Amino acid sequence: MSSTPTNVQVVLARRPVGVPEANDFEIVESPIPRPSAGEVFVRTIYVSVDPYMRGRLWRKPLRGQPIALGQLMIGEGVGEVVFSSDPRLREGEIVRGEFGWQKYAVTTLEHLEIIDRTAAPLSTALGILGMPGLTAYYGMLEVARPRAGDTVVVTGAAGAVGSAAGQIAKLQGCRVVGTCGSDAKCMYLVNELGFDAAINYRTQPLDDALASACPDGIDVIFENVGGEVLEALLQRINLHARIALCGAISQYHSQELAPVPPHSRTLHSRRARMEGFLVNDFEDRDPEAMAALTEWVTTGQLTYRENIVAGIENAPAAFVGLFTGENTGKQLVRVSSEEVSVREP
Amino acid sequence: MSSTPTNVQVVLARRPVGVPEANDFEIVESPIPRPSAGEVFVRTIYVSVDPYMRGRLWRKPLRGQPIALGQLMIGEGVGEVVFSSDPRLREGEIVRGEFGWQKYAVTTLEHLEIIDRTAAPLSTALGILGMPGLTAYYGMLEVARPRAGDTVVVTGAAGAVGSAAGQIAKLQGCRVVGTCGSDAKCMYLVNELGFDAAINYRTQPLDDALASACPDGIDVIFENVGGEVLEALLQRINLHARIALCGAISQYHSQELAPVPPHSRTLHSRRARMEGFLVNDFEDRDPEAMAALTEWVTTGQLTYRENIVAGIENAPAAFVGLFTGENTGKQLVRVSSEEVSVREP
Repeated sequence: MSSTPTNVQVVLARRPVGVPEANDFEIVESPIPRPSAGEVFVRTIYVSVDPYMRGRLWRKPLRGQPIALGQLMIGEGVGEVVFSSDPRLREGEIVRGEFGWQKYAVTTLEHLEIIDRTAAPLSTALGILGMPGLTAYYGMLEVARPRAGDTVVVTGAAGAVGSAAGQIAKLQGCRVVGTCGSDAKCMYLVNELGFDAAINYRTQPLDDALASACPDGIDVIFENVGGEVLEALLQRINLHARIALCGAISQYHSQELAPVPPHSRTLHSRRARMEGFLVNDFEDRDPEAMAALTEWVTTGQLTYRENIVAGIENAPAAFVGLFTGENTGKQLVRVSSEEVSVREP
Repeated sequence: MSSTPTNVQVVLARRPVGVPEANDFEIVESPIPRPSAGEVFVRTIYVSVDPYMRGRLWRKPLRGQPIALGQLMIGEGVGEVVFSSDPRLREGEIVRGEFGWQKYAVTTLEHLEIIDRTAAPLSTALGILGMPGLTAYYGMLEVARPRAGDTVVVTGAAGAVGSAAGQIAKLQGCRVVGTCGSDAKCMYLVNELGFDAAINYRTQPLDDALASACPDGIDVIFENVGGEVLEALLQRINLHARIALCGAISQYHSQELAPVPPHSRTLHSRRARMEGFLVNDFEDRDPEAMAALTEWVTTGQLTYRENIVAGIENAPAAFVGLFTGENTGKQLVRVSSEEVSVREP
């Protein structure tokens, strides 16, 4: 470590009104945290920014504890164990944990997972081989459960979760249609990921586009968006359709529940199932899911993109970009070098 | 048969606006239908009036074919085979089928089920041992799937389906709360059916009443009502709650979908499941379900009420009463005597 190192943290400065802005956050320097006996000291390499974090910025979140003003932002990271006073964890190991948006973290082994850095790029531990990949896997295969020949629509399809979910449905033999917010994303979905069709909801009349992309109706919706897009999709669901509620990014900026048609009427008449889920609900099956995802990634059946910005001070802008449609694939922040700084003794 | 018998039918005279009125229907006399070769002639004994029929009165129903103006009203009935030209069906047999609201029907064996008149009162074939009982059974045990200790709320709990659904949940060891529209119905639910609590949604402030009746939140909703009652219930669902959508009687009189909060937000944050179903979806399991219902009825674990009006000309008023809260339990119309008119040769 250098002579007078300091920690750099991103803290919540004020509660966002509507879509978050970068200056809802503040960059603060603080002393390097000191590990106590049994603790480990980690240098953050990558930190994740994810849409779900928006929910924790409310004074009273729908789920979980609120982040207090002045408090460190939450966020899973990948980092290097620079100092360990736990004999079970060697210095130089690469670990994943809830480090928050900061350069250095102090934690304990129970809160860490050791990452095999030879298996795949480190960044994938926060993306296709991490929470977003698992979310796509469980949401599609356990909640939506598509059958070969089904028409599957994925909303927010160019994001980290949506792009994986759609490809997993393709692997099941489905017709897959994605909605997203730009023509470039549409081309990515069809040309690179093999979606059967893609719809730019910002420029295409949704009803017409859906009629043409889903001529046999919709059997499965993998839902990340909410609002008008979801409403338009629900008009076209088939008998016994399944709607996996993964997120509702268009709705995160309001705690007022917007007036929309009551889903229950449509669900009832089509005898459809709408079900919310969270990746944690399935964690006892993570080994099996990780094995499948790793196999698909290794064999090229599941591809992914990462959007990496450098510097912890750019985490707020990267976070805001999630809601303005900047990213394709997984959005990450590189906080420091992937090179191991600790030498074997 | 008497010297100059005529058939009496109830036909749709005009499409109801809002809640149906008796004079949306017309009573017409017509010639006795004549069976052709292979057909059977049935005298209707009971005919059913059910909330689902409201849906078929729209010009464009959400489900099924519309009933044309001047067309016979649909309705399952129980009747006696008075004449049979099918050797497989004896005259004097009691049968159940889609006879419509009329005194006499002509049909064929494929559209009939033979009813064992010694097993239970004939009227139960249209109620607790018919479509409403099966709806309660499948909706509760297959869709909602309550576990012992769960808090289960049944809306429209004093109706044919709701009263059975609540009792079935009690048999699973649940705390069962019913909502209904009168104090007399509340007393019926608690004192006669063994519900743990009942709420009169017309007179009690729903939020307060639910807080008191469901101190541990709500795990299962068996939903017959829709609208504000459902919205209030959804505010209190627990993690992994299940909502079985059986009907939405408060919503049947409008094809406009009323603006209400989007369920998907709540379902997502509680990782809950909302699922529509129809009794027909499970018909391959009818023998097993009927055996269970019959056993529970025979042993007194499942009780029921029937509300029977006499005369086919009173079917419209009985139907209207479903929507104004007149009936407790199953609403039926007695069209003719239970006594068999055909003598054994």
